[in-house]
Amino acid sequence: MSTPASAFDLKSYLDAEWGAVEMARRELCARLLRDIPTAVAEPVEYALDAGGKRLRPILCVVAYRAVRERAERGADGPAGAEGGVGAAIYEIAMALEFIHTYSLIHDDLPCMDDDDLRRGLPTTHRVFGVPAATIAGAALIPLACRAVDEGGARLGLEPARRAELIQALCLAAGAAGMIGGQWLDLAAEGRTLDLVELQGVHQRKTGALLAVATRLGGMAAGADPRTLDALETYGAALGLAFQIADDILDLTGDTSRLGKVAGRDQELGKATYPSLLGVDGARYKARLEAERAVEALRDVGLDTPPLRALALYAVERDR
Amino acid sequence: MSTPASAFDLKSYLDAEWGAVEMARRELCARLLRDIPTAVAEPVEYALDAGGKRLRPILCVVAYRAVRERAERGADGPAGAEGGVGAAIYEIAMALEFIHTYSLIHDDLPCMDDDDLRRGLPTTHRVFGVPAATIAGAALIPLACRAVDEGGARLGLEPARRAELIQALCLAAGAAGMIGGQWLDLAAEGRTLDLVELQGVHQRKTGALLAVATRLGGMAAGADPRTLDALETYGAALGLAFQIADDILDLTGDTSRLGKVAGRDQELGKATYPSLLGVDGARYKARLEAERAVEALRDVGLDTPPLRALALYAVERDR
Repeated sequence: MSTPASAFDLKSYLDAEWGAVEMARRELCARLLRDIPTAVAEPVEYALDAGGKRLRPILCVVAYRAVRERAERGADGPAGAEGGVGAAIYEIAMALEFIHTYSLIHDDLPCMDDDDLRRGLPTTHRVFGVPAATIAGAALIPLACRAVDEGGARLGLEPARRAELIQALCLAAGAAGMIGGQWLDLAAEGRTLDLVELQGVHQRKTGALLAVATRLGGMAAGADPRTLDALETYGAALGLAFQIADDILDLTGDTSRLGKVAGRDQELGKATYPSLLGVDGARYKARLEAERAVEALRDVGLDTPPLRALALYAVERDR
Repeated sequence: MSTPASAFDLKSYLDAEWGAVEMARRELCARLLRDIPTAVAEPVEYALDAGGKRLRPILCVVAYRAVRERAERGADGPAGAEGGVGAAIYEIAMALEFIHTYSLIHDDLPCMDDDDLRRGLPTTHRVFGVPAATIAGAALIPLACRAVDEGGARLGLEPARRAELIQALCLAAGAAGMIGGQWLDLAAEGRTLDLVELQGVHQRKTGALLAVATRLGGMAAGADPRTLDALETYGAALGLAFQIADDILDLTGDTSRLGKVAGRDQELGKATYPSLLGVDGARYKARLEAERAVEALRDVGLDTPPLRALALYAVERDR
């Protein structure tokens, strides 16, 4: 990872957050998968265990923390959560990884992208078979709702707020958001999208879940509506920047570093930002989106070092 | 449909309820599918439109009504809902049909049971292809959560209660319930289950959703915990009775009447109640479960004519 421009040490920060997310994942899985048939629990755990950057949970936690810190500086009313500020926010945050993992499992299926590798490991259906992978993927959706509800309760959130969080998650994950984007992406194979269509796919497929990640963090911290909108704008713009960077990496990266087969988009004839704008044009667009993300936060006094650094990281990372 | 023993006219009752459920389905789909890509909305609507008995939503509404009527007779505290008692409970109820429809779409996939016909029509993947059917199926899960939340709000339920309803639905639908049962059912193909294993599959695969159907109805009506447990026992026992009757019909019915290919279980070598107990033994077991269902309700003063008649219907129907 390249060093961000600011003095903030994002790498150490992300490493620490990654560790906390992993701890929450293990605790949450131990609790939520206890009463589940082993044959379903195994592929679910395999897919969740396969690593990844945990960007969505980390964004949720960072947004939560930024709002709480602003509240402690006195700009807000009392923060939403009482008591256990520690591990519980990570359980809400893991719900985003559950939904993300569901989408990866299904995206990799033979009837979708038919991928063999994911995060450097054989895809879930390659290990457990297509039926188990299909079922495990779908099982992650209600598990995510449970994680938000139980994590929210442990965080001290009122049931009303937990219901709002679940509703927001379902909207972002569902057919109006991520799942709809999966379909648009798939339906676009074989024909060339223009830039407006491509952006429409990504806003849904990747953007919706990243936008709700920061929004959920803000909601859990009791942020006002204007702040929530700014957090959502940040997440959506960051998501777009991330996606553009992914497209560039798919073109210029190598398989061993990416942990997935490089050049796959080109092989499938998919429209991407570099295919439509050129690599330099795509880089420029990604940087604009990262700036737009930070701008949105500045307006509500939330442009904390980690949130700023994450926006830069989205476009400067090399995997 | 054979006439139930009591004077209660179940057929007219079910016809009226079926019509109300259909109206709610159309309104809910128009609202929830508005912002969804057409290519996802179409297979979702196709699968939901394909008819069926709407048993799960009807059970939810009947349970809701039974608790409300008991409250009006003065046995309970005030009923949970204020104001619009009309259409809104049907929207909560439709969430159960969303989950059920998801399970049918995925069950029929080539990687699962590989079925061509469902409710007398080509299965969703036969019309829209496997990718669209896989995505549409998964899309129904968050849609169900939204239906409960929005229907609950229209019914006047507090957010806290709506969160409880969503949580109960996710538990029943998820890997600990229905989705887990799907897998156990699939994993059992090719070997012969014993009676205990078979019951374990059905308690999850069919029973969990029917049990939560009556429970959600009770929760929406503000029932006390003891009543909720009785409603759940009723739903679970009814579900088992229904499943046993289904197994018998698969063996003795014909394809045109069933709307699906008859004799499929036998062809797949699946253990069923009649294969383990004989047809007469299975009929006896189904009747016992129906009696157990009514018994549970009697204990809490909820054995209303429609709930009694539905339990009988479960075992006496011919399709």
